[in-house]
Parts: sequence; structure tokens; C-alpha cells
Amino acid sequence: MSKLYTEMTKEELLNEQAALLERYNAFKEKNLQLDMSRGKPGKDQLDLSDGLNACSNYVSDGVDVRNYGILDGIPSCKKLFADLMQVEPKNVIIGPSSSLNLMFDYIGQCFIEGAGDKPWSQLDEVKFLCPVPGYDRHFTICEYYNIKMINVPMKDDGPDMDVIEELIKDESVKGMFCVPKYSNPTGITFSDEVVDRIAKMKPAAKDFRIIWDNAYCVHDIVDDGDKLMNIFDILPKYGNEDMVIEVCSTAKITFPGAGVSALVASDNNISAIKKRLNCQVISYDKMNQHRHVEFFKDLNGVLEHMKKHAAILKPKFEIVLNHLENELAGKGIASWFNPKGGYFISLDVMNGCAKRVGELCKEAGVVLTTVGATYPYGIDENDSNIRIAPTLPPVAELDMAAELLCICVQLACAEKLLG
Amino acid sequence: MSKLYTEMTKEELLNEQAALLERYNAFKEKNLQLDMSRGKPGKDQLDLSDGLNACSNYVSDGVDVRNYGILDGIPSCKKLFADLMQVEPKNVIIGPSSSLNLMFDYIGQCFIEGAGDKPWSQLDEVKFLCPVPGYDRHFTICEYYNIKMINVPMKDDGPDMDVIEELIKDESVKGMFCVPKYSNPTGITFSDEVVDRIAKMKPAAKDFRIIWDNAYCVHDIVDDGDKLMNIFDILPKYGNEDMVIEVCSTAKITFPGAGVSALVASDNNISAIKKRLNCQVISYDKMNQHRHVEFFKDLNGVLEHMKKHAAILKPKFEIVLNHLENELAGKGIASWFNPKGGYFISLDVMNGCAKRVGELCKEAGVVLTTVGATYPYGIDENDSNIRIAPTLPPVAELDMAAELLCICVQLACAEKLLG
Repeated sequence: MSKLYTEMTKEELLNEQAALLERYNAFKEKNLQLDMSRGKPGKDQLDLSDGLNACSNYVSDGVDVRNYGILDGIPSCKKLFADLMQVEPKNVIIGPSSSLNLMFDYIGQCFIEGAGDKPWSQLDEVKFLCPVPGYDRHFTICEYYNIKMINVPMKDDGPDMDVIEELIKDESVKGMFCVPKYSNPTGITFSDEVVDRIAKMKPAAKDFRIIWDNAYCVHDIVDDGDKLMNIFDILPKYGNEDMVIEVCSTAKITFPGAGVSALVASDNNISAIKKRLNCQVISYDKMNQHRHVEFFKDLNGVLEHMKKHAAILKPKFEIVLNHLENELAGKGIASWFNPKGGYFISLDVMNGCAKRVGELCKEAGVVLTTVGATYPYGIDENDSNIRIAPTLPPVAELDMAAELLCICVQLACAEKLLG
Repeated sequence: MSKLYTEMTKEELLNEQAALLERYNAFKEKNLQLDMSRGKPGKDQLDLSDGLNACSNYVSDGVDVRNYGILDGIPSCKKLFADLMQVEPKNVIIGPSSSLNLMFDYIGQCFIEGAGDKPWSQLDEVKFLCPVPGYDRHFTICEYYNIKMINVPMKDDGPDMDVIEELIKDESVKGMFCVPKYSNPTGITFSDEVVDRIAKMKPAAKDFRIIWDNAYCVHDIVDDGDKLMNIFDILPKYGNEDMVIEVCSTAKITFPGAGVSALVASDNNISAIKKRLNCQVISYDKMNQHRHVEFFKDLNGVLEHMKKHAAILKPKFEIVLNHLENELAGKGIASWFNPKGGYFISLDVMNGCAKRVGELCKEAGVVLTTVGATYPYGIDENDSNIRIAPTLPPVAELDMAAELLCICVQLACAEKLLG
């Protein structure tokens, strides 16, 4: 049975440290070069979409997909994403090869044109709410547009709504980024209650916009995955249809950076976005849209495909979780969440130790996501959160990396307690 | 031998009109539905790139092109475009599937961040110079960003540089869009002298930017195509490297909207653009980049491929030009340029007649580019310019459409003269 580090005597801690150092040094001698930093699929996952490479023909709904035209996506692809997101095709725009691009461009639109009020570029200050820990690339978008980020703590069922409801009384708070399902990095899914409280928010800013980044909408790793309430089903009830812009993509269904992205929005927002798109592109890559439709056929095809991903990912998540459980449980130095899907495991270590864990791992050849990156401006004030991305390394390497990580967590905490 | 319309008696004109109307009505009875409005390639041109559809493998320079990574394009694709644009690969960024998107995004960057000075969004007024007639989608970008457009007349060797050199003394004039080779729609190529005068401009605005839209860089339709001086060869001589952003794409080499675009710029600009891209995308579609490299192998592959396009396009241009020559020459009612490449024939008819020509064509089932679209805000003050896009219709249809167009030009001018 494990003992709490905080209850160990100095001698016990020193013994623990010595044993850990021995294991750590043995790892160092292996000259590992392992990467658990980014949420990249593994090669075996990419191979699942091999059949996507070629089109059998170039005609979709009578349109030659090789030529110009159709701003918002071929109808068959809009239908596929509409089914996926449980909305009507008219509320879907098929985008470029990444949803990050869609989000960046939409915020740009708010700055240049506004979102029903003044262009945001004409305001003294624009603030966004950032549930933390969160996705570093959302924060990067905010930094680019000089949007001031305000941390909102994540709870087990979503962002702390009491805090949010208070903060939105400030008219300069214009929006919020969310990953509502299998949140990056915590892995939690917003509860129905939280989704409902979000849908009925009445922010002081009439042009408040929530970027609902549903990146992991069908990315279960277990059979009984989380269910996310469809926010577009309830927004009309509160007269808030225009408040949410949802995005998703096949980045982690088929090919990262070479998939198809989609945006879901109200009639008003779709119309405003199409007006901008009409100046920005003639049409996105319809051949890739068509390849995806031919490959999946329909929603069921996507869901069956995701089961193959799950079969590859489940053992990887288990390896990491087993190491965490075996090495760290009951020691009072770390906590984590066991997600039912998504791409990450979020590990919280004793305050003031996360950076040191990152250093120790790096020294021994394992790269973690830059510690702090899960917070706006890269500042995790508690120096506690570590994002683990178990998908890319092959199983054998992941096993070593996870063990090493656990050793480093214990080492860093022992060091800290020993002063 | 043709007679000048202006020298005809009223009776002669009425006879001419009657004969034309007979031909016109015969056309109307055919219930044509022909489109000469947009610069779309024909199906036979698209078929030339059939081999592009599938990759034989997914690895380029050791990188799996199916996964995230490489912000500015795979090295092999950068090399291909560097050879095409005669610059170094370090000065190339491979973009999304259209260069329009690259241009729109770059102007957005100038508005949000500025181009070395204040963000343009913070200025009272931003003006751009627009050589006219020009490309409607450049004007649309300006309209989107609320950039005031100032017309600059096009001459046979490029935009009127005397006018430009005067206008750039205004500090609020921040830039200019150009199509320097086979200009859209005039088909002319900027002379070495004009390129040199552009390269050595000293605008009052230190952050003046020229968008050098080299859309038709290798799009000759004859063997001895025009040669455009490489502006990046001479910009350094004048300390003006940062003034030009060049773009191009394979839209009219392989597939419109599903090709690969590229941007060429100075070290400073590349670095600023990469900084923005790092917030906007993780990587553009590397699979499509790889497909293009596999398909073309090298610059020579591109040039050989363009000869196949030329073989298809040359007869189409000839059909239109023959009709123009046979029906309109020597009548003093129209002038046009015989281009050596590109996608358009620009036809100038008697002042005040272009819109009427468009109407007459439409009534008889032939759609032209919206008359006026070749001018900022859609306003052709002379009501004279018509952009002919001969690429899309099959030869037999084009033959009819061109004949009808010539009839309509004569009808409109006769009407005008008859008052």
C-alpha cells in the first residue's frame, strides 16, 4: 500500500528518492527519444484511411468536383457533417483542411466586420473567457488578435458556470473557446446542466461568441462514450442561436491537416460567414470533400471507422493510466482523470512540480507538451498541470515513456518536499 | 471591306441592324445556354491531371505527409514552386488550395498586425491602386476590408506608371493589386521597364504592399509566350524587397479550388507571415502538395503539362479572335488584344454599349462576365469593357457564343448610333 509523500519522514523520502534515481538513471542510459507532446495520431491510425486516397469518379450531385464553384461545400459532404453534428445541412459550411483555420478566420471576421455590432478592432479591449487547463492553440488565436484572456476553472462537469455568469457582466468580455466533449486536455465532457447554463447565458456583450470546438465529437475510446447535449437544440429556446459557432473536422478521423473541416452556425451567422467566404475563396477543396464522402458513405461509416481508432487507442490510454495508478495512486502527489475518449490524459501533480517533471523527462529523452501550455500566456500559476498525449508513440515506447513520466513525477515531488 | 459605323448613313445603319436582328433571332430560337462568364478550365483540361488523384506513397523527405506538421510546406513542394518562380525555397510558403485565400489572409494580417507600421485597422483610411480593367476578386477583397480603390489605367505595357508615381505620394495609399503576366482581363504582360519602375517606387507609405498575383506565370497559349521580368531579382537593388508579395497556384495547372497555392516574399515578410500562420493552421494539406510533386516531378514536368493545356486553349482563343476579326474589325466599334496566354480576351466596345451587349447576349442564352465587374465597385464609367472567358465551353458551343457576341456588339452599337 502506498504512503502519502507528505506523511513520510525525511529519511523515508531520501530512500524513496534514491530508489527513484536509480530507475531514472537506468532510463537515461537507454538514450530514449520519445514524444508525448502533441495529439498526433499514430501511423497505424493513419493507415485506417488508406482507401481515402483515390476518388473513383469526380462527379457529386452532378457537379464536377475538380472545377471551381460551390462556396459552402458539396451537398453530399454537407449532409454527412449535418448528420454527424445533428443539425440541418443549411446550417453547415464545409471548410478548409483544418478547423483551427475556421476558428482563426471567424475571429478575424469579428475583428474586421464585427458580429452584429462594432468591429472588434475598433474596441479598446476585447476579452475572452478561457476554461483552464485548455487547448493551447485557442490561446494562440487570442494572443494573435490581442484578446485578453481570463482564466475560468474547469470542474468535473465543465467550466465553472458561477464564475462565467459573473464575468460576462463585463461588456468587453466578447467570447469564449470551449472543447465541450473530451475536453483538451482534461478529457471531461460538459454535463447537460452546464450546456444548458451556457445556452441560456445573457452576456452584457450582445455580440458575445462561443467557439464550440467539437474536435472530439465521435472520438470515443470505450463503447459507452460520453454523450454531449446538442447545444443547437436548446439555443433557440433562449433566443441565443447566434451566440455559438461550432466547428469540427476529420483531422483525427482521417488525416490531420489533410482532412475536411466543418462549421455549424445559425442562419444569421452562416449568412455572414458566407458573405466573407465569398471574398476569401472561390471554393474549398471539393475533391477532398468528395473523397471523404465516397470513403465513409454516411454517418454510420464514420462511426464504424471510429471503432477502429478506438481499438488502437484504448490500449495506449490503458498503458498510461495503469502506470499512473500503479506508481502514483495513494501518494498524495498527483491526480488525473480517466477519459472515455479524446486524445489526452490531464495529470495534475503537486503544486510547483510540473515544470520540473518536464525537465526531468526531457533530460531522459521523453518530450512532454510544454508545461504551462495548457494555460493562457503559458502561465500555469500552480505549476501543476501536465498534458499527456498517448496516441503517437508505438505501444512499447509509450510503455517506457509512461513509466519514466511516473518516476519523474515522484522524483520532482520528493525533491520539492525535501526542499 | 468593312465600313465605319460612324460613317454610315441612317439608312445603312437600319439595314445593318435589320440583318443583324435576323441573325440574332435565329440564335434565340436555338435556346442556347452557354457560359463565357468565368475563367474556368474545360473538362478536357481537368482530365489532363487525372494522374494526380492518387499518391503512390505517403513519405516525402522522410516525413509522413498524412500527419500534422511542417507549417510552410514540404521541402519538395517548396523546391518545385521555387523553381517555378525563380526564387529560393526559403522565400516560398506553400499555402491552401487557392491563392485568393493567401491574398485575403495577407491583407487581413496587414489590418490586424500592420506591415511594419500601425495595424491598418487603426487608420482612418486605407487606399489601394487598382489597374483597370482588372480582376474582380481583387476588388472584392478591397471592398471586404473597406479599402478605398483608386483606378489606374492599364496601357499596352502595364499600368500607367506616371499616374501611379503621382498617387503613391499620398501616405494613405497602402498598396496595389496586379496581375503582371497575361493580366486579367487584358492579357498584356508588364514590360521590363514597367516592372523596373514598379520595383523602384518610393511610396510615401513605408508599409506599401504590392500583391503580385502571378496567376498565369506559365500559362502560355503560344510557343513564344511573354516573358515577365522576375521582380524579386531587382527589388533588392532598390532596397524594396519587402514591398512585394507574390502569389501563384496550380488552380489552372491542375484543379481549380483543389490545387496548391504558393506565396513568395522577402525574408522579413516570410517570417511575419509564418508567425501568423503558426496561429492559423498547424499545416496545410501536405498530401495534396505531395501528390502534385509526384505528378510533376520537377519544373520541366509543369512546363510540359502546360503545353497540353495550350493545345486545348489555342483553338478556343482563335475561334473567338477570328469572329472578332471577321465581324468587328474596321467598323470603329470595338477593339481587343490578342494575348499570348492567360485566360481572357478583353473586348472594348463603343462607350455606353457594354451593358447592352451583356443584356442582348443573356437574352439569347449566352452569359458573359457581369459587365462592369472588371472595374472597382462594378463601375465601368465608359460602359465599354467586356471580359471574354473562352476556356470553359466546348469548341462547338464557343463558336456559336462568339458569333452571337459579335452580333450583339454590332446590334448594341447600331442601336446607340441610331439613338
